[in-house]
Amino acid sequence: MTEFFDVRDERNLTMLVDFYELTMGNGYFNNNLKDQIAYFDMFFRRVPDGGGYCIMAGVEQLLHYFKNLKFTSEDIDYLRSKNIFTEEFLQYLKDFKFSCDVWAVPEGNPVFPNEPLVTVKGPVIQAQFVETMVLLTINHQTLIATKANRICRAANGKPVIELGSRRAQGYDGAIYGARAALIGGCVSTACTISEQLFNIPATGTMAHSWVQLFPTEYDAFKAWAETYPDNAVFLVDTYNVTKSGIPNAIKVFDEILTPMGYRPKGIRIDSGDITYLTKKCRKMLDDAGYSDCNIIISNSLDEYIISDVLKQGATIDSFGVGERLITAKSEPVFGGVYKLVAIDSENSIIPKIKISENNEKITNPGFKKLYRIFDKDSHMAIADLITLNNEIIDENEPLEIFHPIHTWKRKKITNFYVKDMMTQIFDKGKCVYDSPSVMDIKEFAAKETEKLWPEVLRFENPHTYYVDLSENLWTLKQSLLHKYSNIYK
Amino acid sequence: MTEFFDVRDERNLTMLVDFYELTMGNGYFNNNLKDQIAYFDMFFRRVPDGGGYCIMAGVEQLLHYFKNLKFTSEDIDYLRSKNIFTEEFLQYLKDFKFSCDVWAVPEGNPVFPNEPLVTVKGPVIQAQFVETMVLLTINHQTLIATKANRICRAANGKPVIELGSRRAQGYDGAIYGARAALIGGCVSTACTISEQLFNIPATGTMAHSWVQLFPTEYDAFKAWAETYPDNAVFLVDTYNVTKSGIPNAIKVFDEILTPMGYRPKGIRIDSGDITYLTKKCRKMLDDAGYSDCNIIISNSLDEYIISDVLKQGATIDSFGVGERLITAKSEPVFGGVYKLVAIDSENSIIPKIKISENNEKITNPGFKKLYRIFDKDSHMAIADLITLNNEIIDENEPLEIFHPIHTWKRKKITNFYVKDMMTQIFDKGKCVYDSPSVMDIKEFAAKETEKLWPEVLRFENPHTYYVDLSENLWTLKQSLLHKYSNIYK
Repeated sequence: MTEFFDVRDERNLTMLVDFYELTMGNGYFNNNLKDQIAYFDMFFRRVPDGGGYCIMAGVEQLLHYFKNLKFTSEDIDYLRSKNIFTEEFLQYLKDFKFSCDVWAVPEGNPVFPNEPLVTVKGPVIQAQFVETMVLLTINHQTLIATKANRICRAANGKPVIELGSRRAQGYDGAIYGARAALIGGCVSTACTISEQLFNIPATGTMAHSWVQLFPTEYDAFKAWAETYPDNAVFLVDTYNVTKSGIPNAIKVFDEILTPMGYRPKGIRIDSGDITYLTKKCRKMLDDAGYSDCNIIISNSLDEYIISDVLKQGATIDSFGVGERLITAKSEPVFGGVYKLVAIDSENSIIPKIKISENNEKITNPGFKKLYRIFDKDSHMAIADLITLNNEIIDENEPLEIFHPIHTWKRKKITNFYVKDMMTQIFDKGKCVYDSPSVMDIKEFAAKETEKLWPEVLRFENPHTYYVDLSENLWTLKQSLLHKYSNIYK
Repeated sequence: MTEFFDVRDERNLTMLVDFYELTMGNGYFNNNLKDQIAYFDMFFRRVPDGGGYCIMAGVEQLLHYFKNLKFTSEDIDYLRSKNIFTEEFLQYLKDFKFSCDVWAVPEGNPVFPNEPLVTVKGPVIQAQFVETMVLLTINHQTLIATKANRICRAANGKPVIELGSRRAQGYDGAIYGARAALIGGCVSTACTISEQLFNIPATGTMAHSWVQLFPTEYDAFKAWAETYPDNAVFLVDTYNVTKSGIPNAIKVFDEILTPMGYRPKGIRIDSGDITYLTKKCRKMLDDAGYSDCNIIISNSLDEYIISDVLKQGATIDSFGVGERLITAKSEPVFGGVYKLVAIDSENSIIPKIKISENNEKITNPGFKKLYRIFDKDSHMAIADLITLNNEIIDENEPLEIFHPIHTWKRKKITNFYVKDMMTQIFDKGKCVYDSPSVMDIKEFAAKETEKLWPEVLRFENPHTYYVDLSENLWTLKQSLLHKYSNIYK
């Protein structure tokens, strides 16, 4: 395989930043807070589509972003032209060198609401500045990986191909969307550049225009078979699937492909009643001696339609999924947030909390760790536990976990082991993490997802996986809440 | 203003292409169809959110794409490694020079279903190849411009600020999404790089983390006021809007800002019951002598919520709109398609049609023109008329238009003038169009939208604007349909 070309390093996305990160930066700088150490957590509050878990994705792109953080002299000139930043702050940006510590849950892991996925610790100007890109990167890819995972599970082992580029929301929506779709479970993509960048398989055959360009549909299929005898997949719905497309396909299989010594690969249907058409096509193909010819479907599919047509007995061998995957159409927003959770003060960590009239918007304070607890025999995931950063879980002692709101709901766990879910990816601004290949992440995601109980995997009304707080963290949170409770009096 | 830095020219997106464009290209090449001239139309079939029209956007990015089309030797090496392309085809790609004619509806124009927005004429390999990027570019930006236009109309003249970067679907989703949002009507964006690239205003103040970082909310507001006395906009919902945020804001207005000789700019609320809170805040600010202090709202807004809270009497001066705009959440897919409509054959144009069992998926054949008909007195848009390319409309004769399906519905138009809606942007591969500035496009969009009758502008159940076919085009389409009707017998 050839060396892959990499478009990623060409782009400096430093200025892809919400303007308020800069006004705050200038404010911190001019209030002598430039060296103030702050801790930020990125987390989300609910799983899209009412699902039970998400698939973490996007960390590799975060690495690129952090590595390339740098203000050009054009950037500084532009910022100066806004007439609101002091020259001292602009000089600080000119000399900017990323020096934060960053931890992240590696890609492919199932993740759950309210647990830290990324933690950034560093000078507040820096740790604040990266908010926009941490969110943009992780929100987008986790959204698509999670959606792909749902769609692939609905397909029940049959291959799902990502082909949504043309309906993606911008170029990166297509490029990184394809990457995330593979992590979530798709077997390949139509997006060529994503194969180049990420070494994930790109595939494709013909559009309706191929069929239209030739004098007849038969001529179009014939020309294709002669060009690609080992990859004969015909799109059969340009005129009429059962009265024209399939008969012409079979004719070309008989007259061209078979004499050449090849078997047909498949037929693709892109419109019409899937269940009816696939059953009818299957019978026509079988009757003609092509029971090995696959039927591929691609028409506004998602997990709901795929489940439905499979339940109805549609005879489909693989699915091409476009716009509803690449935009996560049913719920196209992943609501990850990035919140200040602590600051350093005279060698101690001062936890910070964000209060809200919406209880679910109250944050978990402090510099924290995320542990996943597995059963020692079955290796199934039992619960996640968020602790303060200095807490260690003794695997040899029974562990009592409890619901953070209904605290009388308690569970004693024995015979377990824990996994520290967050890996340090930057150490004082230096990258200390090698991102695995996308195909390795994909395999890892499949393996880790299997460690979730079927109740958590359920599409509708899944069991809520336990994400609990350690006794210490819970107590800290309560004390901060009580501190602010007088505001509500 | 400083020279703007341009990230666009850095990226060659040639390989952002559905793989089947390449397999078809190789197929055309090896079937001696490399010089076959083909005509493709890009169009869409329905307006998102049940609206009456869309706002065309994305043409400037298409110019960049066409100009930069080029295969690097790495691209060729990568394609060779796939083992399905002939060396002759790879050589053709290596020598690739874009030579198509392209016409497009200029950005900012209201556009309607089934009319050509982009037409590409050229060697079929090329005209086919650009499908993915034509769709991706126009679909994305037209989606967001259209959504922004709905949201801004709901805001009823009050300014709307785009601030969705962190929830966008990929980096370009944010960058070009901000561009499209401005075209649709937003007054500014939070996306800094979009100001650099497109000279659109970027704005921003503070996040909750600013408030949390200081020992008290009062300290945080005080530090801000001292840093930005002429831009004092305080985020007041970190702890409690009415019991903490507003009282602290007023205290800082009184104690810091007023003595410095400044007036407050505004307060921002990002959570809670908008109608209740804004009314209460308005009264508190007015009572304290700050009736000129604006109230800015930013919490999961879209056209529906904005209409609703304004109807309830919420006292809001401007809106910050994030995730629901930048992803067009309520309908995040713009279903533009790109279809073969004709080919050249021995100096004549052979029209092509795509049949479908879904009537709305049948295409309009032929190389065409799009005219908009305006009333001579009111300058209001009466109808759009799609004609064959060689048709000229005589403005001095009455024009009879008719419904393309219910052909008995006819209308005779007098006292009108027509506008040729498509502009040539490439002539044999050479760019012949200068894109206006985004702010000019935005102004143009506002002006052109005012030429639509209020019935077409309606949010719910708008009047369907007439998009009719000329007699010649209608007759051609009927004859092609009849040609294929025997398939359905």
